[in-house]
Amino acid sequence: MEQKEVTVGTNKIFEGKIINLRVDEVKLPNGKVTTREIVEHPGGVSIVAVTDKEKILLVKQYRKPAEESLLEIPAGKLEKGEEPLICAKRELLEETGYEAGFIKHLITFYTTPGFSDEKMYLYFAKDLKKYTAQPDEDEFLEVYEYTPEELWEMILQNQIKDSKTIIGILYYFKMRNSL
Amino acid sequence: MEQKEVTVGTNKIFEGKIINLRVDEVKLPNGKVTTREIVEHPGGVSIVAVTDKEKILLVKQYRKPAEESLLEIPAGKLEKGEEPLICAKRELLEETGYEAGFIKHLITFYTTPGFSDEKMYLYFAKDLKKYTAQPDEDEFLEVYEYTPEELWEMILQNQIKDSKTIIGILYYFKMRNSL
Repeated sequence: MEQKEVTVGTNKIFEGKIINLRVDEVKLPNGKVTTREIVEHPGGVSIVAVTDKEKILLVKQYRKPAEESLLEIPAGKLEKGEEPLICAKRELLEETGYEAGFIKHLITFYTTPGFSDEKMYLYFAKDLKKYTAQPDEDEFLEVYEYTPEELWEMILQNQIKDSKTIIGILYYFKMRNSL
Repeated sequence: MEQKEVTVGTNKIFEGKIINLRVDEVKLPNGKVTTREIVEHPGGVSIVAVTDKEKILLVKQYRKPAEESLLEIPAGKLEKGEEPLICAKRELLEETGYEAGFIKHLITFYTTPGFSDEKMYLYFAKDLKKYTAQPDEDEFLEVYEYTPEELWEMILQNQIKDSKTIIGILYYFKMRNSL
């Protein structure tokens, strides 16, 4: 049985460049009314891109919320009305300079469904052809490549600490022989 | 080289029950000033809890941001000053009624470092002993258990769509023989 929470009121708190914040008043299955804080996000894509030498591409960038630079698989948010596949190709090229000869959707997940509607579309890309990276004006990225085994060690050593990146690497290990 | 973004101003937008929102003015490596929207979250724990029959416990609950019920591994947010390990034991018992004879930390990650500081501490638990679930007054949970193979199928079928749950299941597959 679906324990739906019915919206009985909405309060828009903030509209930003990336996210909006609203607080919904909801009626619980027991009839009580409470509030839910909801961060609206347009959704994003991320790409496990594997070179011909079986190295996975990562980008390093400063993440203000974490106050540190993180190693992540290439990713970006959806433009208004943009198809996730188009976005994945665009972000891969912009961030790493690689165009994918082969790209396919793997899975889609909520990054943090307790307080945000952000959906992440995860892709797999191979047959990569090198062009020039074209990061946005205010993006400062460094591109790295590692073997899957190196990346697993880096997860265990807490050198990789981004959820979509961990999912991408672990998914790759699980499906390595069939991708 | 760390491309740090230096805070030159902060604007507190909202203080909620679960999250706060602030907008930081930051100076980029190129000297330009821009803004970063940051959702502050106390951090959380989640637990891959495996029964003696090698079934993994999941809970189903309505997630307002997703507007649907999601299957997730047991999880919860840290109380002020609470140790993640204590929190993990508490949430496992509250949500599923199980006490762990063995519990250990696996990895810690940011759920969505582009806009939030939320850190998720992932645990592994076994040697489970059944008591009675004690959900919070406003939590409506159903407990399920599945084999790892069933869960992998459910990930592929998009029946499991929560990032921490996907990480927990994939991590379990990778480490199954050494946990």
